[in-house]
Amino acid sequence: MSWNSFGRLFRFTTWGESHGPALGVIVDGCPPGLPLGEGDIQPYLDARKPGQSRFTTQRREADQVRILSGVFEGKTTGTPISLMIENTDQRSKDYGDIAGKYRPGHADYAYDAKYGFRDYRGGGRSSARETAARVAAGAIARKVIPHVGILGHVVEMGGDKVSGFDAAQIAANPFWCADADAAARWETKLDAARRSGSSLGAVVEVLADGVPAGWGSPVYAKLDSELGSAMMSINAVKGMEIGDGFGAARLSGEQNADPMRPGERPGDPPLFEANHAGGTAGGISTGQQIICRIALKPTSSILTPVDTITRDGQATEIQTKGRHDPCVGIRAVPVAEAMMALVLADAFLMHRAQVG
Amino acid sequence: MSWNSFGRLFRFTTWGESHGPALGVIVDGCPPGLPLGEGDIQPYLDARKPGQSRFTTQRREADQVRILSGVFEGKTTGTPISLMIENTDQRSKDYGDIAGKYRPGHADYAYDAKYGFRDYRGGGRSSARETAARVAAGAIARKVIPHVGILGHVVEMGGDKVSGFDAAQIAANPFWCADADAAARWETKLDAARRSGSSLGAVVEVLADGVPAGWGSPVYAKLDSELGSAMMSINAVKGMEIGDGFGAARLSGEQNADPMRPGERPGDPPLFEANHAGGTAGGISTGQQIICRIALKPTSSILTPVDTITRDGQATEIQTKGRHDPCVGIRAVPVAEAMMALVLADAFLMHRAQVG
Amino acid sequence: MSWNSFGRLFRFTTWGESHGPALGVIVDGCPPGLPLGEGDIQPYLDARKPGQSRFTTQRREADQVRILSGVFEGKTTGTPISLMIENTDQRSKDYGDIAGKYRPGHADYAYDAKYGFRDYRGGGRSSARETAARVAAGAIARKVIPHVGILGHVVEMGGDKVSGFDAAQIAANPFWCADADAAARWETKLDAARRSGSSLGAVVEVLADGVPAGWGSPVYAKLDSELGSAMMSINAVKGMEIGDGFGAARLSGEQNADPMRPGERPGDPPLFEANHAGGTAGGISTGQQIICRIALKPTSSILTPVDTITRDGQATEIQTKGRHDPCVGIRAVPVAEAMMALVLADAFLMHRAQVG
Amino acid sequence: MSWNSFGRLFRFTTWGESHGPALGVIVDGCPPGLPLGEGDIQPYLDARKPGQSRFTTQRREADQVRILSGVFEGKTTGTPISLMIENTDQRSKDYGDIAGKYRPGHADYAYDAKYGFRDYRGGGRSSARETAARVAAGAIARKVIPHVGILGHVVEMGGDKVSGFDAAQIAANPFWCADADAAARWETKLDAARRSGSSLGAVVEVLADGVPAGWGSPVYAKLDSELGSAMMSINAVKGMEIGDGFGAARLSGEQNADPMRPGERPGDPPLFEANHAGGTAGGISTGQQIICRIALKPTSSILTPVDTITRDGQATEIQTKGRHDPCVGIRAVPVAEAMMALVLADAFLMHRAQVG
Repeated sequence: MSWNSFGRLFRFTTWGESHGPALGVIVDGCPPGLPLGEGDIQPYLDARKPGQSRFTTQRREADQVRILSGVFEGKTTGTPISLMIENTDQRSKDYGDIAGKYRPGHADYAYDAKYGFRDYRGGGRSSARETAARVAAGAIARKVIPHVGILGHVVEMGGDKVSGFDAAQIAANPFWCADADAAARWETKLDAARRSGSSLGAVVEVLADGVPAGWGSPVYAKLDSELGSAMMSINAVKGMEIGDGFGAARLSGEQNADPMRPGERPGDPPLFEANHAGGTAGGISTGQQIICRIALKPTSSILTPVDTITRDGQATEIQTKGRHDPCVGIRAVPVAEAMMALVLADAFLMHRAQVG
Repeated sequence: MSWNSFGRLFRFTTWGESHGPALGVIVDGCPPGLPLGEGDIQPYLDARKPGQSRFTTQRREADQVRILSGVFEGKTTGTPISLMIENTDQRSKDYGDIAGKYRPGHADYAYDAKYGFRDYRGGGRSSARETAARVAAGAIARKVIPHVGILGHVVEMGGDKVSGFDAAQIAANPFWCADADAAARWETKLDAARRSGSSLGAVVEVLADGVPAGWGSPVYAKLDSELGSAMMSINAVKGMEIGDGFGAARLSGEQNADPMRPGERPGDPPLFEANHAGGTAGGISTGQQIICRIALKPTSSILTPVDTITRDGQATEIQTKGRHDPCVGIRAVPVAEAMMALVLADAFLMHRAQVG
Repeated sequence: MSWNSFGRLFRFTTWGESHGPALGVIVDGCPPGLPLGEGDIQPYLDARKPGQSRFTTQRREADQVRILSGVFEGKTTGTPISLMIENTDQRSKDYGDIAGKYRPGHADYAYDAKYGFRDYRGGGRSSARETAARVAAGAIARKVIPHVGILGHVVEMGGDKVSGFDAAQIAANPFWCADADAAARWETKLDAARRSGSSLGAVVEVLADGVPAGWGSPVYAKLDSELGSAMMSINAVKGMEIGDGFGAARLSGEQNADPMRPGERPGDPPLFEANHAGGTAGGISTGQQIICRIALKPTSSILTPVDTITRDGQATEIQTKGRHDPCVGIRAVPVAEAMMALVLADAFLMHRAQVG
Repeated sequence: MSWNSFGRLFRFTTWGESHGPALGVIVDGCPPGLPLGEGDIQPYLDARKPGQSRFTTQRREADQVRILSGVFEGKTTGTPISLMIENTDQRSKDYGDIAGKYRPGHADYAYDAKYGFRDYRGGGRSSARETAARVAAGAIARKVIPHVGILGHVVEMGGDKVSGFDAAQIAANPFWCADADAAARWETKLDAARRSGSSLGAVVEVLADGVPAGWGSPVYAKLDSELGSAMMSINAVKGMEIGDGFGAARLSGEQNADPMRPGERPGDPPLFEANHAGGTAGGISTGQQIICRIALKPTSSILTPVDTITRDGQATEIQTKGRHDPCVGIRAVPVAEAMMALVLADAFLMHRAQVG
């Protein structure tokens, strides 16, 4: 079943194909009275936009967002906000090869097995172009929780991890990398991959500061669960973890403890001596920084021929030319940030509903 | 907001506290006409039941399930199936210490910050006792997809990984371990942890065979996303991955490819030369084995005193005595299997709804 | 598809068959800290309980409610509240006639056409016994909106309408009738119907006072729409209206106007010179009394033989003996009140979520 | 809480204000492979379009629909279908009077009480212009259930009822009236109302033929309940009923019976001797014609001055000039048809999901 909506109270529904006339998103459930204009959304789209450096796909999209409803006199009205982005670079090309063959690692075969056919023009709804809509929705989510700061960065590329964190570096290189040394190494690595028509995987981390204790829920709407759903819905993501994540599985109970002590002044929230848990306990925020990481597989579109089959079931090979990201992890950063914002805005409204 | 339901069409809602009279689950959306009796559910509960070996909590619960509705003359009627399990070992003890102090690593503080108070008797809804209800629901889910085989096992404990897979071994040791050598090592390791009042983390893998190509959805109901939501809702889980997961982030596009070739006979589904993707592409099943792994943190209840605060905000220490699992990963195996079954049963109904 | 849940944030799920061991309801999403005990729920169940007068079915059910979860030290915890009512009078009788024949006017044939079989013991989930669970849930909903007063009464029976409204009369007769003269007429009428094995329809009105302006939503969660869904889900209800309802369709715009004037003191809500709209405008509450009426068909179980068919498709007749309500409208009063409370509690939480 | 989505599996979300640049709808959950083009949708929009006769508002809207996604090579793809309709006649006028005063009978006051402000340009989301989006979605729903025929007509205007039914008449007059005599009387009546700046209420009936037995659900997704929710969400609707509806409340059990007899040939569905129930029993379709009626209040915008208050709470009067429908019941016909189609398409998918 097609399911293109996300969220419980702060809900959004995305639409549009990679090669259709436009794509968009309806954001429903937004509180009224928030200042909102296209200028609040565009910077996030620009951050995700293809063609920003030689390390992302050279498809050229303006990704200009237009607000079609839900805003009146510069403020949200509490009614659905419709955002639309026109596709301007649906290059008219020959899809012949892709149309008749399944690209391994892409949704092609599974999609066809499901629906009985597929939109072979760039993957239809399977295209990562859908994420532009999420990024736009995420910009609105940030308005709902203005005191929460959300920051994404790449922490590992092609197996090579960062070893430091300097927030100022993140915007200073084309990799959203907080470690200048790692960024330099990645440049070499990714250039090599790009030239040989190969690709690299990556790990992206998203941090959220300013979330008070108490958001989330103890059972099926744990923050962990909502983030699991959100992050695993991003194209090419094959894993996610919170706090120490898989690393926590290698610790003892003593090593993994997050001891507490009183806040500095009476009434202050408690201080934690560690944050192995990544900001949640029992699915509810603790007031610490929320830490989430996602693993992105290397782009499946590579120049090396790969065995595959045709729609008729005949053996063949496929070699994917064209404009692809050599490491989809880079452009996933603003997308993951958006999903974090969307989950947290929803958690905030859900919390306010029950507790007031 | 409290959210105790899961699933879109095959939906279940759990209820009950660790120290209340009973707990249970309502399963709604089950197809009619499936043979179902308590005997179909009890074995799964027995597998999860505490006190099966010295490596799980010594709390003694019969965990006897009773079907209260939705079954008539031995078959499901298509109406809600109510299952109840009475709590028999709510030991009358002194909760004084726990009642007044927050246990770091547990939901205590976050829960109180959310709701303004908490049920300090064993954690209320934060107790892993809730998972008994999921396991019961999962047994019904298996009936909906009888051709799907689901198998969970522990693949890593305290950082020590299995190196082989022999399905026959899984039931032959108290760790659900498919590698006899690893099981022997874990026994020593966990005995040491148990005696010193410490605890270990673990990684659990769940495999599903027999899922045809085409289940799932391209965007927000990707199988990956549904599994992300399901698995991250299990107590103590801090990470999840599908297929190579975080490992895929370290591969090149060539290494990560899952090449396809034609099935043996015309009409057969295609064969895949690898399964790095873990059985999904673009969120939809490919017909390969579904592979999912989850990371469980070490039990937070340890004998070593940990800094904490009282409800009044005063500095103190806490030392958690009592009956605890030294490695919650063991009893998480039937729970993770159940969540896999519940996600897949739902995906099957969702697929049938849209495509027929 | 079986769908046994209602509500968006204040959600409940009912379960149980007429002739199973018990029935119940899980209420999820209730705010924490509300005082709640079985004594808060039982009076509403007693009001609905069968066998209160000769004008309701003589089935004898204690309808004793038990809280199994979600309440700790006399207060709601914010987690799911499980309520259970045991069935004590599942009279062991011969269902042979009903088992093999479809009762016209009942769900029998439609149910069988849907599910391929049916629980012929008293209708299974189609039995109005399910409404006990709603009434129990409704008692909790009232706690969420303590300043809202909800009052149901029968305004028409067998085509005979009340002509006055004296709230004090409602509890003084077995018909929840606010007009003593009408109650006297109905007694004669319904006695005649009862003796001849016939039945009468009725119209029930539910009033809600104290709802502030602003609850509801402009489009698909209009209060009108939520009440439409809620009221039309009650057994035997075939119509519903708000305010003047079908009568409004016969008025001119001038006659139907609800003119406004300022409240008595600055800051007071406005006063309305009429309430044709029944307390909602554009789907949102106006601060006036909410007025809703529902039409209940006459009980389909009558002594007069009616043409029908057997499960095998053979022509036959059926004559329904047994313990039936000669006018289901009477016992629908507490049910309709409960549904009003449940809709309003949900609307309150929904409003608080978005607007704070 | 804003809630602009409807449906469980066949879901749609509408957006757009009366006086914004455009409005639209996303239809999600549509089965793949259905032939669909703008030409399948436009006729229904044309039927609802204003300005078709002197009996509807003279606002001139082309209401030209554009499919922006979800259709590929003339067929639905199973992914979200985005439809957009541009607003072309957002007449630039002086809203001064409306901006500062609440129009009684409209959502103005309630809306402002909810959100703290309102979009005074034509009512924002409260405008019946939103129903264009429903009508467009309904056209797609019809494609999902091609064997179901849906027909709406006006059965009462200003208290004057039709006395016959000739389907061929419906398109032959500007009132969707199946009775030529009634249409002639209504013409006079409505002309008088229109000239005097008054308005009339109406009752609309929607019939659905070809629905097999078995759609719907026994409890909270009864067809009756889904229709209750759907129909009561239409602007100006204040009541709804199924089958005999409020009339059934005046019948005895014998009069209200729908006796059954065997179908003509073995295997044929049963025949019913009456259809007081309007095609549902216990919330599930019986295979008979579905009959639903809705009551529409007279347009609140009238020329006669009505007492009201300003936003500042001062007493004043309002007189609504401008382009209004003298009887909103006329243009409600295609809207009610659309809601019927949307409910039934959803019920079909829900049924297929559970029962196959």
